[in-house]
Amino acid sequence: MNAPVNPAALPSFGQVQDAAARIAPYAVVTPVLRSGVLNALSGADLHFKCENLQRGGAFKFRGACNAVWSMDDEQAARGVVTHSSGNHGNALALAAATRGIAAHVIVPEGAVRTKLEAIERAGAILHRCEATQAAREAKAEEVRRATGAELVHPYADTRVMAGQGTAALELLQQADGLDALITPIGGGGLASGCAIAAHGVAPQLALYGAEPTGADDAARSLAAGHRVGPFVANTLCDGLRTLIGETNFEALRMHRVEAITVTDEETIAAMRLLWNELKLVVEPSSATVLAAVLKRPERFKGRRVGLVLTGGNVDIDALPW
Amino acid sequence: MNAPVNPAALPSFGQVQDAAARIAPYAVVTPVLRSGVLNALSGADLHFKCENLQRGGAFKFRGACNAVWSMDDEQAARGVVTHSSGNHGNALALAAATRGIAAHVIVPEGAVRTKLEAIERAGAILHRCEATQAAREAKAEEVRRATGAELVHPYADTRVMAGQGTAALELLQQADGLDALITPIGGGGLASGCAIAAHGVAPQLALYGAEPTGADDAARSLAAGHRVGPFVANTLCDGLRTLIGETNFEALRMHRVEAITVTDEETIAAMRLLWNELKLVVEPSSATVLAAVLKRPERFKGRRVGLVLTGGNVDIDALPW
Repeated sequence: MNAPVNPAALPSFGQVQDAAARIAPYAVVTPVLRSGVLNALSGADLHFKCENLQRGGAFKFRGACNAVWSMDDEQAARGVVTHSSGNHGNALALAAATRGIAAHVIVPEGAVRTKLEAIERAGAILHRCEATQAAREAKAEEVRRATGAELVHPYADTRVMAGQGTAALELLQQADGLDALITPIGGGGLASGCAIAAHGVAPQLALYGAEPTGADDAARSLAAGHRVGPFVANTLCDGLRTLIGETNFEALRMHRVEAITVTDEETIAAMRLLWNELKLVVEPSSATVLAAVLKRPERFKGRRVGLVLTGGNVDIDALPW
Repeated sequence: MNAPVNPAALPSFGQVQDAAARIAPYAVVTPVLRSGVLNALSGADLHFKCENLQRGGAFKFRGACNAVWSMDDEQAARGVVTHSSGNHGNALALAAATRGIAAHVIVPEGAVRTKLEAIERAGAILHRCEATQAAREAKAEEVRRATGAELVHPYADTRVMAGQGTAALELLQQADGLDALITPIGGGGLASGCAIAAHGVAPQLALYGAEPTGADDAARSLAAGHRVGPFVANTLCDGLRTLIGETNFEALRMHRVEAITVTDEETIAAMRLLWNELKLVVEPSSATVLAAVLKRPERFKGRRVGLVLTGGNVDIDALPW
């Protein structure tokens, strides 16, 4: 999970716009919600982009769908493969189904049963392997060679970054005159795509990334001026335990994204606020953005702020409070 | 809570349309969500109207807001009063705040602290009384006489029914060609308003009401052809324990609404589905509509069905599973 990943070219703003057109027939135009209570609490005017209401319950469908529909017919006929068994795996399965092509998802021993069931229900072919990153990558490579399926990486992929950027593009169309935008940072697919999209529309927009203190590699990388190496994550935000991709990190630096780190306790408190005030089921990773706004109010006070709520795939029988 | 209520004239379709224009500056145009999983499960094409995302977390804001803005300036200046300490009380407080007028809410001893805090935070003046319906009504009357405030009943009020009907009006604009519509039935404000709105737009639309078996007075009343008397409710659906209003019942009969009763177990199962698949925090009352569709699949199979999710005000520390 924390192994360095190969660089992939950053998408241009035009590629984000192309992605938006490409996924339009399949993706949900997710609503933007507001809350008087959360505005009062933060002193800011908050606009929540509800990607937990996206197909598959996460923004990941955008990138996966753009990748699936970017391929030519010949390549597409051989299917797609990924070694993510989380939201990206599910998203790729759903996206492949929109084109009627095969999706191969590598799943490590010990993966959460409900997530696997969802991926299988979406029509994917599951391939089991050991629970190490090396085993997953080896298995993906094996499937790729055997089938000719195209590897779609969860974040180090130009098509995926462009697709994720459509979340910000859409938000900026729905909410006029934003001053700032904040997304969580995991592998950086969303953060990099949204930075490109946001500055393509509004070059002066201030960009922020929320990161758990237990997986603050992007914050440390930005502070150091270069990407730090693999680390052991310690956070309940299961979507954000990944080392940021090399190109993804470059995008954050180029676009002057400021990282704000939050503790899991702050994230859980924010998650409760989102459930109670916005009436949304969001997963911990999503709540980091509100936690960050509440932790650094001086950055956001009096401003119009866009926040991307990334997903809602959480076990409602094992809530973290 | 179960005492018979005075009749109030049913609103016309035109009054529902007027209400929609009146509340437009203040109410949220709530999104309509769909789910491939829930469609597959029901065999129907389900369109969920998300009133849990309405201001105050429930459709009640629509009726309260219409009542508040229907008054002339002189009457409005004296404020509004209600003896509902639940979603309607909170909605009336929020609606009064949009006009800058006083809202008096009668709250019985033992009311849930978090609900009272929300009502107070919305700016209402709380008046405590004993926890009986008689004491609440007496207190409301006392406040009304002392202040001149206008009583806004939670469902036996023409303005309130018209306001609640705007949920259906909006849904029918958002989702084309619906064959059927289902709402929960409590006091009947929503069910009656939506029946009038729906048949104003589409006279052939089939109308259904979902009711807990432990508060099935509307089902029994429709079967008997007349409104049954007060009863003791036994359901966890706290929004649906009320005896249906006299005029509200007449509307259900006139519009040939079919009641479908569901057990609390069926409601909880449906609530879990809504949380997991739609990623929405909905209260038990809301989930009765999905429970009803899944219980009587023959009524809905192959049809385009609108379902009103009424609210999301639930204690996330005391979930019913």
